[in-house]
Amino acid sequence: MDPRVREHAETILDHSTEVESGDDVVVSAPSAAEDLTIALCEAAGERGASPFHVSFRKDATRAAFLAATDPEDLETPGHELALAEAADVWIHVKAHDNVADMSAVPSETMAAFNRAHESVREEILDTTWVLTQYPAPANAQNAEMSTEAYEEFVWSAVGKDWAAQKDHQQRMVDILDAGEEVHIVSGDTTDLRLSIAGMSTINDHAKNNLPGGEVFTAPVADSVEGEVLFDKPVVHDGRVIEDAFLRFEGGEVVEHAASKNESVLADILDTDEGARRLGELGIGMNRDIDRFTYNMLFDEKMGDTVHLAVGRAYDACLPEGEEGNHSAVHVDMIVDMADDSFIEVDGEVVQRNGTFRFEDGFEE
Amino acid sequence: MDPRVREHAETILDHSTEVESGDDVVVSAPSAAEDLTIALCEAAGERGASPFHVSFRKDATRAAFLAATDPEDLETPGHELALAEAADVWIHVKAHDNVADMSAVPSETMAAFNRAHESVREEILDTTWVLTQYPAPANAQNAEMSTEAYEEFVWSAVGKDWAAQKDHQQRMVDILDAGEEVHIVSGDTTDLRLSIAGMSTINDHAKNNLPGGEVFTAPVADSVEGEVLFDKPVVHDGRVIEDAFLRFEGGEVVEHAASKNESVLADILDTDEGARRLGELGIGMNRDIDRFTYNMLFDEKMGDTVHLAVGRAYDACLPEGEEGNHSAVHVDMIVDMADDSFIEVDGEVVQRNGTFRFEDGFEE
Repeated sequence: MDPRVREHAETILDHSTEVESGDDVVVSAPSAAEDLTIALCEAAGERGASPFHVSFRKDATRAAFLAATDPEDLETPGHELALAEAADVWIHVKAHDNVADMSAVPSETMAAFNRAHESVREEILDTTWVLTQYPAPANAQNAEMSTEAYEEFVWSAVGKDWAAQKDHQQRMVDILDAGEEVHIVSGDTTDLRLSIAGMSTINDHAKNNLPGGEVFTAPVADSVEGEVLFDKPVVHDGRVIEDAFLRFEGGEVVEHAASKNESVLADILDTDEGARRLGELGIGMNRDIDRFTYNMLFDEKMGDTVHLAVGRAYDACLPEGEEGNHSAVHVDMIVDMADDSFIEVDGEVVQRNGTFRFEDGFEE
Repeated sequence: MDPRVREHAETILDHSTEVESGDDVVVSAPSAAEDLTIALCEAAGERGASPFHVSFRKDATRAAFLAATDPEDLETPGHELALAEAADVWIHVKAHDNVADMSAVPSETMAAFNRAHESVREEILDTTWVLTQYPAPANAQNAEMSTEAYEEFVWSAVGKDWAAQKDHQQRMVDILDAGEEVHIVSGDTTDLRLSIAGMSTINDHAKNNLPGGEVFTAPVADSVEGEVLFDKPVVHDGRVIEDAFLRFEGGEVVEHAASKNESVLADILDTDEGARRLGELGIGMNRDIDRFTYNMLFDEKMGDTVHLAVGRAYDACLPEGEEGNHSAVHVDMIVDMADDSFIEVDGEVVQRNGTFRFEDGFEE
């Protein structure tokens, strides 16, 4: 086994999830990630934890979806819910035999599935969870890289100095936590205003996402005004939405468009009421992720991007006891901020053309 | 996909487990059985059930075992227990990348694992469950057959006329249900007497085992007297015990031996108190299984064999409300009855040299 696989497993268990003796650990990983699955089970055993491998196989799930006679009848599966309720730690490893495997499933079936699984996801989010990527050949192909180069890309990103990264990101957390009004402008296609008053900003230093490298918060649900063109492709269950465009009024999407797969975008927005509102504002801060790989786990962390997600807000961003935007979906979309772009917080420019105000080369 | 894989999935869902709309189905299968996993998920979806694929990967589990610092500390994993409690149907597919994968795990670690998982197994046995085999190359190799020939062997055995087989077996069930004292003699190495008074005999027509093809019951725990030489190898977690010998007094093993891996046999018997008593008497009746393949799921069904299991008794064999022999293990061992052998029930010969009294060629 490649020693970097074992290091990956150690980072997952010791940094991201801090697994302890006696923990009931679910390793949710497809067969394309066999090496990492075995390394995780072994390392969990070394730490006195009980690993249990479940395979959320997209292709098996797809088979079930395609066969379901009436997707509207899909109910929350009690066995999956019970497992999620009982787990202490949930490690979800992404890896594909074919990233387009889900493309044959109709959007409305996917939406019905997402609704049926909403409570399962809520329970998983209540565990100590992490989402990571194994560099399978299909994922390398999707990134337009050789498998060897992609392995190096993934394992370098995973093996970062997370303590230093946390300090770097904290400067942006402090700005956002003190701020209220955010204004995002990119070229003449994106001009969006939203409030983050009262919200908390999370410093993602690879606890829930490995690699990490962003700061994120939740917009005040009805505060979002303006329009945004997501100039990076949105890959959603194997389908690529290009040039997604959203216009917001009073926090709600009132107009949408796309140059490719507009119907997929429409189906996302139609999942439920919360799918038409923003659940997340995220700012990428990981300078080691230096290229787009058509994989949101990495792309959204890039240093000169902003991402917005329609759908579910994360509880950690919300004031204690307050309900955030609810939805069965959470779909991130990226705006490239490298050129002709800025972010203002309460009228002060905090990033221009991808450079933060606390970085060298920042122009006021 | 080989159409026989889909037929296998249909037999599992429609004959063995009778899956219905709304059932929460666990498909427990390793990656060596990918085709069947996908076929099962698809067919479950077609029937309106919710399939969930978990991979009881022996190699991943082994990794965790090998790494466990003190196997005696292993506790029942709460997440696995919760899943088993919530499942309606549990389909366990055997398939290996290497049948010897578990051979590196010390017997005492395996025993500790079995004890820690006893309540999980109890819950699985409370679902509608089935154990079946996928013809993976490593399993074909273990059977000393080409993969193609082994596929034919497995899928022929699975695709049997189970209604006709049930009728054939019922004749033996009727004999055993009416009987009390069983006497098993083979050559000069096996001479065993046991009581089955008050016990029920189960007609295994491929409900819990696919293929099925045996009848089995539970001996009265303290009734077993005499000695038995198991002339077929016992394959236990990748280790082969040869010429296992047991002598019983008052139902308990008081002497044991083996020509190979005697320590593995000793470790099985030392698992707990119940591991030294018989939990099952089974009689193979499947004439389509015409060769030994070093796989108990098939071997124990052969037409001219008897098998005995040390350890756990099945509740279905016991009088209502009565506790049978309890143990964390259930290890089947086979006696070849083809030559110089007979089975008597209450003094009447019911099988001689492998031929039942209701079959052609039987000699009183």
